[in-house]
Amino acid sequence: MNMHKQHQLVKKEKKINSEGPVMNTRAITPRATDYSQWYLDVIAAAELSCNSPVRGCMVIKPNGYAIWENIQRVLNGMFREKNVQNAYFPLFIPISFLEREAEHVAGFAKECAVVTHHRLQLENGKLVPASPLEEPLIIRPTSETIMYSTFADWIKSHRDLPLLINQWANIVRWEMRTRPFLRTTEFLWQEGHTAHATNDEASDFTLQMLEVYRRFVEDYLAIPVICGKKSESEKFAGAVFTTCIEAMMQDGKALQAGTSHLLGQNFAKAFNVKFLNSAGAEEFVHQTSWGLSTRIIGALVMVHADDKGMVIPPKIASVKVAILPVWNNADSKQSVMTKAEELARNLNDAGIETVIDRQEGRLGPKSFEWEKKGVPVRIEIGPRDLANDTAVVVRRDTGEKAHKNFAEIAPFVNGLLDEIQKNLFTRAKKYRDERTFSVDSWEEFQRVLEENGGFITAHWCGSADCETQISEKTKATIRCLPFGQPKEEGQCVFCGKKSESRVIFAKAY
Amino acid sequence: MNMHKQHQLVKKEKKINSEGPVMNTRAITPRATDYSQWYLDVIAAAELSCNSPVRGCMVIKPNGYAIWENIQRVLNGMFREKNVQNAYFPLFIPISFLEREAEHVAGFAKECAVVTHHRLQLENGKLVPASPLEEPLIIRPTSETIMYSTFADWIKSHRDLPLLINQWANIVRWEMRTRPFLRTTEFLWQEGHTAHATNDEASDFTLQMLEVYRRFVEDYLAIPVICGKKSESEKFAGAVFTTCIEAMMQDGKALQAGTSHLLGQNFAKAFNVKFLNSAGAEEFVHQTSWGLSTRIIGALVMVHADDKGMVIPPKIASVKVAILPVWNNADSKQSVMTKAEELARNLNDAGIETVIDRQEGRLGPKSFEWEKKGVPVRIEIGPRDLANDTAVVVRRDTGEKAHKNFAEIAPFVNGLLDEIQKNLFTRAKKYRDERTFSVDSWEEFQRVLEENGGFITAHWCGSADCETQISEKTKATIRCLPFGQPKEEGQCVFCGKKSESRVIFAKAY
Repeated sequence: MNMHKQHQLVKKEKKINSEGPVMNTRAITPRATDYSQWYLDVIAAAELSCNSPVRGCMVIKPNGYAIWENIQRVLNGMFREKNVQNAYFPLFIPISFLEREAEHVAGFAKECAVVTHHRLQLENGKLVPASPLEEPLIIRPTSETIMYSTFADWIKSHRDLPLLINQWANIVRWEMRTRPFLRTTEFLWQEGHTAHATNDEASDFTLQMLEVYRRFVEDYLAIPVICGKKSESEKFAGAVFTTCIEAMMQDGKALQAGTSHLLGQNFAKAFNVKFLNSAGAEEFVHQTSWGLSTRIIGALVMVHADDKGMVIPPKIASVKVAILPVWNNADSKQSVMTKAEELARNLNDAGIETVIDRQEGRLGPKSFEWEKKGVPVRIEIGPRDLANDTAVVVRRDTGEKAHKNFAEIAPFVNGLLDEIQKNLFTRAKKYRDERTFSVDSWEEFQRVLEENGGFITAHWCGSADCETQISEKTKATIRCLPFGQPKEEGQCVFCGKKSESRVIFAKAY
Repeated sequence: MNMHKQHQLVKKEKKINSEGPVMNTRAITPRATDYSQWYLDVIAAAELSCNSPVRGCMVIKPNGYAIWENIQRVLNGMFREKNVQNAYFPLFIPISFLEREAEHVAGFAKECAVVTHHRLQLENGKLVPASPLEEPLIIRPTSETIMYSTFADWIKSHRDLPLLINQWANIVRWEMRTRPFLRTTEFLWQEGHTAHATNDEASDFTLQMLEVYRRFVEDYLAIPVICGKKSESEKFAGAVFTTCIEAMMQDGKALQAGTSHLLGQNFAKAFNVKFLNSAGAEEFVHQTSWGLSTRIIGALVMVHADDKGMVIPPKIASVKVAILPVWNNADSKQSVMTKAEELARNLNDAGIETVIDRQEGRLGPKSFEWEKKGVPVRIEIGPRDLANDTAVVVRRDTGEKAHKNFAEIAPFVNGLLDEIQKNLFTRAKKYRDERTFSVDSWEEFQRVLEENGGFITAHWCGSADCETQISEKTKATIRCLPFGQPKEEGQCVFCGKKSESRVIFAKAY
């Protein structure tokens, strides 16, 4: 290669790497080398988020936020089917509200951001807080208290029930150790809050919303989950019971992907949320709350991404197809671009969101860019392909390539997107099932956890003491008491006492 | 009316009034009696928002939030056409960031909520703030500083420009006197922030986004606006210049409905946002920011609502048609409901969002409910209408009724919605134009403002001193220096010095 050519190459690559506002050129650490670093590298390479100057807070970049917007769109549709309405409640909660529900305050007091002043003033050239508030306010760590104090005004009669409200909001929990998406001081979520006339109805709605989450996470995010109930010590602060969906990450650890609580009348009593029943008597309402957060984007990375970067399931990807035209000279550029535009039009008309990468440059680096961003399908078109009236269709999940005539590309891609969606789910489920171990002795429990990680299904006597000791000794916690588990006589894996069914243990995020 | 009948009536009305979670039964104070109370009454009657237990913060109820979601949907589409991408930045801003841009800190320091602690602990049975932060954080009153400190990392080369980012977020400004939507301690908005290679491009983009706002507010919200530039004293803290769209409310006062700023290199210098130009030299970027908030919902009320309640322009209404079936007995109920459902299907199939009010009750109260909520079109169906194969179509803006055969209703309503949209705009424009006065003397200025209110177009010499004195004496401020104003030699309405064109004065929200 002569100097001139080499120079050109470098110039081209530079152009590509500096295109766009948020390019990252670091190589991705392989999972096998350093899983934690791999996670951070994928997020950087796919431009999902970056650090902010505020401790523990991240910036969600356009690529990451686009995933969140798609999550919002799909979930809003599912919530509407349940007659849930969106509303917005204040960011601030008076401290006294938190005090009203004893378990709730214990659960959240240690991680509250507290607003104490409402003005800044200059003092010796520095801005300092001025004008203290009469009652300090906390930034919502969750909105039960602020919402239910208002529900008390809204609900008068049984005809006002059920009240089904959802809020999309930012939440603050002061976390000591943070990781992008998985655990940040501020995060985004939706929180549903409902009030019902009877316990049965509330309990049923709790499970209906868990099923909404299951359906969403499995069908759209292609993440297989286990539905179940939390143990007493893992339940939400103030709930009667907590249900959850649990997913396995590629390091065998569990991540709670969504949660739905039956609150019973605990908060209703604390906030005096009553209704007149049809017999004219006053009763406290029965409540539920349920939430899913930007944490799920962390799960999306940790379930589907690989050593080449992000892999976005087609149903949640904003860009489903990237067309990558390449050319040798001005003439071939024109004919390749014309074809690329025609193809993009066809695909977009068929409802398949498609973009064209119009950058100068070789196929390699262009392809690499879209691969690490996780776009489900790439279509490469060069002058030689054009001569054959074909293009190369590459799927992100397997890397498999297919040469296709232009006329057959749209229907082929349509089917391919379905296939990728299914494959991602199947692959993740296979991964999970292969790392789920039925264990019957404490020795085996420790060995399996040490050697394989993953999920352990084991008998547990139901005592909080055993639960605590297991977790202290192994860092594995009870992820859930799975629904629909067959009854099976057995002995607690830790203490040997009687147990009637298995629960799932795992280390968790 | 005998006792039995009266009892029945009350019972029926009670049923209707207690249907739904957030019903309000107070009568609406007429505008002419008490404009401020009318505004609050309309918001309560239409269930747009309610007070919260936190000083100065409101709860946005489902009806109000649905309007905001539609605003988001339409604006997102318009932003996408400009290649603007959504992202999300932290809620918190370190105090030191605010200090970096001198005008900016002066503009916002007085109204910042300050987070000083990150934990609560029990002390004598009361929760009190614990664990002070090393550096206090403010809750974003706007995000220039936190965003641009990150832009400095994102932007390296001229190829990274323009960077076009938008954020949907909650904002906190500690206001002493608050009013729902118009001025609340916490509010929702979108804030666009862009960086460009040249001043010309940034300046042009500032105006492009103002035009987006004009188009959105006029075409979707049916609110006529005047586009112009703010005077120096009214511009954004830290901007080179501020442009705005100004609308007139039904009490003749002005409301700024959207704003777009050229920030020049002020923030770029404060946050070191530089790029390498194509010649390889370092330059500071040129920036813009632009925003529109939930305040616009206050404008929507104050421009279109009447003494009967809210009036929502069809293009921003989630529910465009409410079908109100009424019946005498079980038989007629069935046939009327069947017809109502058929009609709702037809309208929804035609893309016209339609709901059926299935409540028991007389037509009057049912109709009144949907009237005060501002739904653009109501369709009344009773047994008698059914016999004639007709229904009564009522438009909200004029109250006009039309008897229509079922077969013609869908196309008729389609046209009617367009007509209502146009009429609301025309009516508001007529109202504004009739209350806009060209004034040439200080006496006339004071008299017109006193007697008529509204907008005054008058000559102004350009001095901040005159501006301040006018505002101190009359409470009217310069709303804007309108674009496209013809040059006209004249004399400052206050000091008599030379002026080359008129500006708009008004009292404002």
